[in-house]
Amino acid sequence: MKTAVVIYSGGMDSFTLLNDVLYDENYDEVVALSFNYGQRHSKELEYAARVCAELKITHKIVDITAINGLLQGSSLTSDVDVPEGHYEEESMKDTVVPNRNMILLSLAVGYAVSIEADVVYYGAHGGDHAIYPDCRPEFVDAMNRVTQTANWYPVTILAPYLHLDKGDIAFRGYELGLDYGKAWTCYNGREKACGKCGACQERIEAMASAGIDDPMEYEQ
Amino acid sequence: MKTAVVIYSGGMDSFTLLNDVLYDENYDEVVALSFNYGQRHSKELEYAARVCAELKITHKIVDITAINGLLQGSSLTSDVDVPEGHYEEESMKDTVVPNRNMILLSLAVGYAVSIEADVVYYGAHGGDHAIYPDCRPEFVDAMNRVTQTANWYPVTILAPYLHLDKGDIAFRGYELGLDYGKAWTCYNGREKACGKCGACQERIEAMASAGIDDPMEYEQ
Repeated sequence: MKTAVVIYSGGMDSFTLLNDVLYDENYDEVVALSFNYGQRHSKELEYAARVCAELKITHKIVDITAINGLLQGSSLTSDVDVPEGHYEEESMKDTVVPNRNMILLSLAVGYAVSIEADVVYYGAHGGDHAIYPDCRPEFVDAMNRVTQTANWYPVTILAPYLHLDKGDIAFRGYELGLDYGKAWTCYNGREKACGKCGACQERIEAMASAGIDDPMEYEQ
Repeated sequence: MKTAVVIYSGGMDSFTLLNDVLYDENYDEVVALSFNYGQRHSKELEYAARVCAELKITHKIVDITAINGLLQGSSLTSDVDVPEGHYEEESMKDTVVPNRNMILLSLAVGYAVSIEADVVYYGAHGGDHAIYPDCRPEFVDAMNRVTQTANWYPVTILAPYLHLDKGDIAFRGYELGLDYGKAWTCYNGREKACGKCGACQERIEAMASAGIDDPMEYEQ
């Protein structure tokens, strides 16, 4: 029995990844793992739960809001306004949660060990390299050296979109026939997506570059 | 301003380490970080809090009990009986929490980044190498490769007792003039230490090998 764990935020990258892994005949079972870290866009999690129910796969949601007291300073979990504009801009550094992916991957690997899964997937991609050091190939390589030695049971971290950009991911989703209305992206968790935060802007551009009509409703 | 974070359980190894780092003139500030992971020996945490108050240093306790649902199977956090006997024995594998040190160090590094501390100390030692892969030199090396690249801000993980055994640590504490009545070790969190669990046995042997009278009260 070969099991894969997919870190699934409910956003478009991990939504595509989850479906991609489900199509992989190497695995007998795919389980999705989501983190509630007090993100203001917790709507993502509702979208994730709905998709997993539809796909009839195990969906584990872990509440790690208690660790926010430890990781001060990110606008994604605090009262600071979500900055508008592009990821590449200096203001977007405010959206960096300290050591975020190392923490989430460590937890996912712990989960993998406990259910005897061999691999953990996460949706790091090339578009994030500039601003997020923990989405880069050298980070993934270094993490894999740890996860081969940290337990009696080796776990491999895979990031198949590491060298794609968000437009490529959207195009991959198009090939898989995915409905992106099922993926929530906006950093503000209001009724409709804001269309202005960095996450929305990147999504809008990715959809355009892949030639997909975005089914998401935007405030403007 | 140079700040060090010390992962401090309240047990004898990290109690010694904390005091050792406090004597290090390289640091302007030392902060202690403890994890409440629903351990049945939460008495450790009370001991830790008392020591930090006495030392007048910042003591951060993070509640990570919510992640237990993710990491099944360890007798330290579940209803399985704590096994008696030595760490080297097969039964002691039950005390292994999946990916424990990778998770705790990831959180500690996140904390270090958020308070601009350069180093994270933890009390891994040679006596744990046999049963805990995440107390070995190759694990610490691999982790340091990650923590140099995971954030904009590099953090170094130091484990100065990595090549000492528990007896050496007790002797170091003796050199520092420490009172081991302030360090709780027993895996069972009862009034007195049980004297029979793996943790107690290792402690008793360490004290004996260092020639120290253990001030801890034991049930027998």
